[in-house]
Amino acid sequence: MNKTLKTLQQTSPFLRACRGLPTDYTPIWLMRQAGRYMPEYRAIRAQHSMLDVIGTPELAAAVTLQPIDAFGMDAAIIFSDILPPLIGMGFNLEFAKGEGPVIHNPITSPEDVAALRTPPAEENMGATLAAIRLVTAELTPRGIPLIGFAGAPFTLASYAVEGGGSKTYSKTKALMYTAPQAWDELMRKLVTVQVDYLRQQVAAGASALQVFDSWAGLALGLQDYVRYVQPYNKRLFAELAHTGVPVINFSTGTAVYLDQVAACGGDVMGLDWRLPLDMAWQRVGLDKPAQGNLDPVALLTEWPELQERVDDVLARAAKVRAGGGAPHIFNLGHGIFPNTPVDNVRRLIDYVHEATAR
Amino acid sequence: MNKTLKTLQQTSPFLRACRGLPTDYTPIWLMRQAGRYMPEYRAIRAQHSMLDVIGTPELAAAVTLQPIDAFGMDAAIIFSDILPPLIGMGFNLEFAKGEGPVIHNPITSPEDVAALRTPPAEENMGATLAAIRLVTAELTPRGIPLIGFAGAPFTLASYAVEGGGSKTYSKTKALMYTAPQAWDELMRKLVTVQVDYLRQQVAAGASALQVFDSWAGLALGLQDYVRYVQPYNKRLFAELAHTGVPVINFSTGTAVYLDQVAACGGDVMGLDWRLPLDMAWQRVGLDKPAQGNLDPVALLTEWPELQERVDDVLARAAKVRAGGGAPHIFNLGHGIFPNTPVDNVRRLIDYVHEATAR
Repeated sequence: MNKTLKTLQQTSPFLRACRGLPTDYTPIWLMRQAGRYMPEYRAIRAQHSMLDVIGTPELAAAVTLQPIDAFGMDAAIIFSDILPPLIGMGFNLEFAKGEGPVIHNPITSPEDVAALRTPPAEENMGATLAAIRLVTAELTPRGIPLIGFAGAPFTLASYAVEGGGSKTYSKTKALMYTAPQAWDELMRKLVTVQVDYLRQQVAAGASALQVFDSWAGLALGLQDYVRYVQPYNKRLFAELAHTGVPVINFSTGTAVYLDQVAACGGDVMGLDWRLPLDMAWQRVGLDKPAQGNLDPVALLTEWPELQERVDDVLARAAKVRAGGGAPHIFNLGHGIFPNTPVDNVRRLIDYVHEATAR
Repeated sequence: MNKTLKTLQQTSPFLRACRGLPTDYTPIWLMRQAGRYMPEYRAIRAQHSMLDVIGTPELAAAVTLQPIDAFGMDAAIIFSDILPPLIGMGFNLEFAKGEGPVIHNPITSPEDVAALRTPPAEENMGATLAAIRLVTAELTPRGIPLIGFAGAPFTLASYAVEGGGSKTYSKTKALMYTAPQAWDELMRKLVTVQVDYLRQQVAAGASALQVFDSWAGLALGLQDYVRYVQPYNKRLFAELAHTGVPVINFSTGTAVYLDQVAACGGDVMGLDWRLPLDMAWQRVGLDKPAQGNLDPVALLTEWPELQERVDDVLARAAKVRAGGGAPHIFNLGHGIFPNTPVDNVRRLIDYVHEATAR
């Protein structure tokens, strides 16, 4: 580890909070902070497709830096998407306009799973790794850490099987129920690919990682989660424990079995907006740092209404801290909406910094 | 109350279980049991649109009876949809092919809410009420009860504001956050319309009611549910308590605050598949009859896998009963999928009856 990165770990409020250390104020960043709500981002996307931006290190780096320069978040997160690693495995991925991601050759049989490749990240995700190098060269001297990320195996598997988004996840669940061996093979391959990808992101300069399990909680009941997801997430987080950087375990819709989610691993729990922060935090253990959990819809309202909701999150975090609990990292409980007013973002970042200054 | 209906209440296992009384076997029916998985249903829908079937009493009655005649469920549920009552309020509703329901004039302002009408059910839902009369004339002598139903105000409001389905419900939530008076007016109007509609269904012959709050749990966190939904659901269930028939309170995605859902009212709790039956039941009180909660995806598997999951639900219900808890009504934890094999449905109904015969 070079000296600059070590300095970063000692000085960055975000990285300190991830490790349970005190900070001068509550660090904040926002999921999807580099995104469509920013005019600077829309200007780039007007000329380049989603996959173009992800696949061009200079563009991805520029987009990653936009919110940092505009609003001063305490961490950047590399601009990418959870799905591109599927391309190297053999999937034909497209970000279709207005439809969201589409996979044109979804898994329909155990043979399809057997045919999937597990190439090293450098082979297919090289552009993202290069973007990480560009961003960290810029941000590390400024004392700002960069978060690398990847999708959790279930969430990727659900796209690979459904061919896109889903309301029921019935194809994915039918596969796991009727072809448990194929399911096991699929999840193992995804763990292999994602562990390598996340490790390479750290090697490229990421000083924290976040794993997004966006759909497990919406798709699966408690019993299915424990049986078909947890073993793979445990393996994933165990492998990542050797990277030397903090790992954030984020999922949505899992409030009812958050204890089982936390049992998978990770250094920081990312909490969605479905339970008040302290109630969710209690379920995973107050001794573990927590990140969250303002409902992103709150950012669509006027400031007094927004402030009331921000204050509620901060008050609950302060209560945990006062009781001897771990530090809080302010974030949303899900990705920011494209129609969020920019002024609300600016005001939110400043307000959290000022209101929590100690 | 006429003598035949009174007899029905004493003899029907479904109605007995709803009132907490012992039965000779566990009654079973399936949400969306009259639907696309049945070839008889598809034959009718090949010639008539969704709104045509709902709007023609003879067709709606025929479709309602199809699963009863084919499989012998212990209750019928009137064929309709939760959305048609919105038409009378002023919404332009269409069931678009492949897209699901679309509302072409969604609410975008408080003025839109003020303009909504609250006509009596007989004016706009007369066809469904007539279908109920037809079905009960047929089923009551056969000793089979008919369930009437309606959507809960939040779920209807979400369609009315989003203009269709949603993954984020951000427009609905933005309305409730930024225009709380308009939200209150919208929810009050929906309660007015739904209470009248459900009462009229009882007057037409329905001997039980189910209220579907399909999306509140996916859209709202605990605090929002308590503030923006619970008061209206409480009013709804309080009004329905005077109908003299049991009312089932069903919702999905609410496992994490099921106690607050149960506090809204209803005689029977309808449980989704997200928690094992007994764990969910415990959260609402074991002294209240419960309905549920097989994951409908289980019906897409082979019988041994399906049976294992059915046995798990039955064992959990038996455990509750052995501990002095209330009766169980077997059902799915969400509507049956269109691609469900008919043989699995037949086998499920027979199996639940045989395995629980006392």
